[in-house]
Amino acid sequence: MLSKAVFYHAGCSVCVSAEQQFVTALDPQRYQVEVVHLGDAKGRVAEAERFGVKSVPALVIDGQVFHINFGAGIEVLR
Amino acid sequence: MLSKAVFYHAGCSVCVSAEQQFVTALDPQRYQVEVVHLGDAKGRVAEAERFGVKSVPALVIDGQVFHINFGAGIEVLR
Repeated sequence: MLSKAVFYHAGCSVCVSAEQQFVTALDPQRYQVEVVHLGDAKGRVAEAERFGVKSVPALVIDGQVFHINFGAGIEVLR
Repeated sequence: MLSKAVFYHAGCSVCVSAEQQFVTALDPQRYQVEVVHLGDAKGRVAEAERFGVKSVPALVIDGQVFHINFGAGIEVLR
């Protein structure tokens, strides 16, 4: 059975592309990944908080939160 | 062909177990994951720095760095 993983973010465009690379690296045979933009889906902020999400982007796998800080390379900002 | 992913950490025991859950969630058909303890393998710190690793734990996928901050639940510290 697929486990559920949820990726919470808030729409930073540089981060979204990097984070999607990260999300798609998860094993599709084991994880069904849902991507939630908390800026668009404010009704789910409370849900994220219940999982323990303190900042975005964050990935929740099997109920465990991983906070991800992606330091964008300067070159992507040119 | 398998892409290489490298997980750098420094041995925090609470974090290691959580992070291994995270690492094992990657798709094994696409990623060969190497786990590097930089406290034990100090010779590889420079390598990690070349990838852009600024803090540990960090996961490098396809040359891109993701810094992960796992906030351990208070219950695991009891």
